[in-house]
Amino acid sequence: MKGMELLTDLYELTMMQVYMKTGIIQNHAIFDMFFRKNPFNSGYVVFAGLEQLIDYLQNLSFSKESIDYLYSLHIFSDDFLDYCKSFRFTGSIFSFQEGDVVFPEEPVIRVEAPLGQAQLIETALLNCINFQSLIATKAARVCYAAKGRQVIEFGLRRAQGPDGGLSASRASFIGGCIGTSNVLAGKMYGIPVKGTHAHSFVMAYDSEAEAFTNYTKAFPDSSILLVDTYDTVHSGIVNAIAAAKKLLAQGKHLAGIRLDSGDLADLSKKVRKLLDEEGLDYVKIVASNDLDEFRIDELLRQGAPIDVFGVGTRLATGYGESALSGVYKMAAIEKNGALIPKMKVSDEMSKGTIPSRKNVYRYYNADNTMCFDIICQNDEIVLDGDVYDIKGNRFTVDKDLISRCMHIPIFQNGTLVYQKPSIQEIQHHCLTNMQSLPESLKDLYNPDEYQVYISPELFHLVESMRTEIHKKID
Amino acid sequence: MKGMELLTDLYELTMMQVYMKTGIIQNHAIFDMFFRKNPFNSGYVVFAGLEQLIDYLQNLSFSKESIDYLYSLHIFSDDFLDYCKSFRFTGSIFSFQEGDVVFPEEPVIRVEAPLGQAQLIETALLNCINFQSLIATKAARVCYAAKGRQVIEFGLRRAQGPDGGLSASRASFIGGCIGTSNVLAGKMYGIPVKGTHAHSFVMAYDSEAEAFTNYTKAFPDSSILLVDTYDTVHSGIVNAIAAAKKLLAQGKHLAGIRLDSGDLADLSKKVRKLLDEEGLDYVKIVASNDLDEFRIDELLRQGAPIDVFGVGTRLATGYGESALSGVYKMAAIEKNGALIPKMKVSDEMSKGTIPSRKNVYRYYNADNTMCFDIICQNDEIVLDGDVYDIKGNRFTVDKDLISRCMHIPIFQNGTLVYQKPSIQEIQHHCLTNMQSLPESLKDLYNPDEYQVYISPELFHLVESMRTEIHKKID
Repeated sequence: MKGMELLTDLYELTMMQVYMKTGIIQNHAIFDMFFRKNPFNSGYVVFAGLEQLIDYLQNLSFSKESIDYLYSLHIFSDDFLDYCKSFRFTGSIFSFQEGDVVFPEEPVIRVEAPLGQAQLIETALLNCINFQSLIATKAARVCYAAKGRQVIEFGLRRAQGPDGGLSASRASFIGGCIGTSNVLAGKMYGIPVKGTHAHSFVMAYDSEAEAFTNYTKAFPDSSILLVDTYDTVHSGIVNAIAAAKKLLAQGKHLAGIRLDSGDLADLSKKVRKLLDEEGLDYVKIVASNDLDEFRIDELLRQGAPIDVFGVGTRLATGYGESALSGVYKMAAIEKNGALIPKMKVSDEMSKGTIPSRKNVYRYYNADNTMCFDIICQNDEIVLDGDVYDIKGNRFTVDKDLISRCMHIPIFQNGTLVYQKPSIQEIQHHCLTNMQSLPESLKDLYNPDEYQVYISPELFHLVESMRTEIHKKID
Repeated sequence: MKGMELLTDLYELTMMQVYMKTGIIQNHAIFDMFFRKNPFNSGYVVFAGLEQLIDYLQNLSFSKESIDYLYSLHIFSDDFLDYCKSFRFTGSIFSFQEGDVVFPEEPVIRVEAPLGQAQLIETALLNCINFQSLIATKAARVCYAAKGRQVIEFGLRRAQGPDGGLSASRASFIGGCIGTSNVLAGKMYGIPVKGTHAHSFVMAYDSEAEAFTNYTKAFPDSSILLVDTYDTVHSGIVNAIAAAKKLLAQGKHLAGIRLDSGDLADLSKKVRKLLDEEGLDYVKIVASNDLDEFRIDELLRQGAPIDVFGVGTRLATGYGESALSGVYKMAAIEKNGALIPKMKVSDEMSKGTIPSRKNVYRYYNADNTMCFDIICQNDEIVLDGDVYDIKGNRFTVDKDLISRCMHIPIFQNGTLVYQKPSIQEIQHHCLTNMQSLPESLKDLYNPDEYQVYISPELFHLVESMRTEIHKKID
């Protein structure tokens, strides 16, 4: 990710110029990334996009071309452009790991850096994390609905731009998909690539039978035949069965057939029966056509004998809720050598923030089930005693629970200190997380709410700062 | 757009290999891109993304690295990889122009190329056009709702990946936005960049008053102050008025204030009154916070005195309907030197296609209002007489109407023959299109349906091919 230094909102740069003019651009600042609401009415979010954020930060410098462009806008001073010329990220980053499940209000990434640097990276950080976390979450939901059946992502053609497709393929794999149709994503991220064929392939030949014969001859071990170009039951499956038998005569096995229109529950049952009657019980049924977690759940409730789901548009674009509303807010800033906690109140209560340098601890019971999380001051671990929920209700922590610190150091003073896991390891980590998550939180329609508490020190800090701010205003 | 040759679904490549093995990869083929339904319950779609498609086609060749990757998949033969090594796009493309309004079922792009080439480009073509057309449409709707007030796009932080943000900025400008917050989009596409400041800027200083003074000192002619960090009415606007008066004493004018939370209709009225009472009637009110065409329409109906709308997430991601469902289907293929029209039927009537080489003519009345479109065979212009709608109803064309051919040649035999307009020209073209569109089609909630007819030759061809296909199946 080179050349991305201008992938930022203009205001980051104008604010930085003012920070410079007022002498605070090097002051140490702490920012949190968090989101306020789970998308898709989900009970959780799968955190993803960290690797792209790391790449961005490692390559973050201003090319001469970029400096020239900023100069041409006639709003930046020479000393500020000089600052940009020598810009490098020298800060520290603490973060959840990709594949972790995360929840509203938790600081999922904490940035500690000179103010100017922490400000500049806001937009790109949000862009990386918001989108990939959205899609990893959607993928986890889709795979959960599929109850162990394979899910393949093929959303590139409807994705939001080339990178929308690539990032979506990566995040979908993290969330549990077994592969993607996107060849470039396969090459870039090491994800298995998968595919069937299109209607145009059938139309390119004089008959469907001829098309199927040609395809299976070329790929005798991996053909999945699309059977709905003309008529699934009366033409497509008839020709697919004939092709499968020809293959079988050569000792080869047709891998599957794909349904892409019509009543998938009804058609899959009919097709399964027709295949089984011909001794082709090994031929898998792949289904596609605007699928998502709800449609897959419905199909399986109807008993559809579908083996593999091809999920495109609705997965790759987070259909229905196309953005995770992650934000990036200041938590503290240095003044005269001391770190001053900062808090936003706001006309909308829900748009306030939690001040100070923070961490998140996750509590598990003995069988490794997640119980709740506690947001605390960085050096404050709550092993037992009282904590508070967002509304101020008190709750007591059971001392028998096992706790785990969720913030992992990624960068320390500009140096990458994190060993990036492989995409397979991230997928596995996500799966492990999903297994630790109580079943009631995974419900697709009406999940329970996971409890995220605030530590006593933090709770009292919020209370006192809120009082002080309101006193000032009145 | 170099290195995008693998931005394709795997199946394009596997199908191509079979086309090669069966000797038809060089056969001349015609494919159409079209969509079946307007997004957002809109009465129209604004066509966009052609420039990126042109770039893709001009740079389309396989690098050694890409060939090596394909080789590593162990499914491609040496002769096919040799074909890839020498791949260039040598076909012809006919298309609507960016900024044109387009409608369901119309072939918006027609590709005429050797079968292998026409097949390969499917995924990238759809990716470019689907997303940018979606966002240009959303932008046109948002700007229509704003009734002449300025709209600025600032969706990058929630966009679907870096390119999702860049493409969205470009398409939003085409649809009528006056600028973007995205600096890289400004540099790449020549779009004006705009911005205000963030809450973190206010929090970086000891007080809101100090923050405002610092900002206006640095940008005396262009400051837009965000007033909701602590309390819009009791703190933000009070401090903004003080800053405006300090500026005025130096002969400078505060550009605006920005509201970003709370009841925007109510707050904008209160704030307007407070500003006006202080003689600051020139200070503009900018509003943001999850806006879209519906919320803007509602705000203006409530009489909110908002001058500029900042629209982010819901514009840049096409919130609510995050994909245009454009498809790419074969219309004809050469066999023994003759062009054979091809048609898909399908279990779902709505998923059928219209065969043959086609063009679209648009009919206007004397005052330049669009009346209807006719899809016809390429060499068949209907000046008067009967045409048909999709359901087969007959309609008579009035000979006094003015007709215009909508398919413009873009590539001819691999050579770009189209003079790419500037983004400003495209925006202007879109505006002209919107002016030609009947008001009833622009309604945000319940638009009329624009009539797209089928020429008599095409209608009879569809009828006879459908009969023939069904005869074959039975």
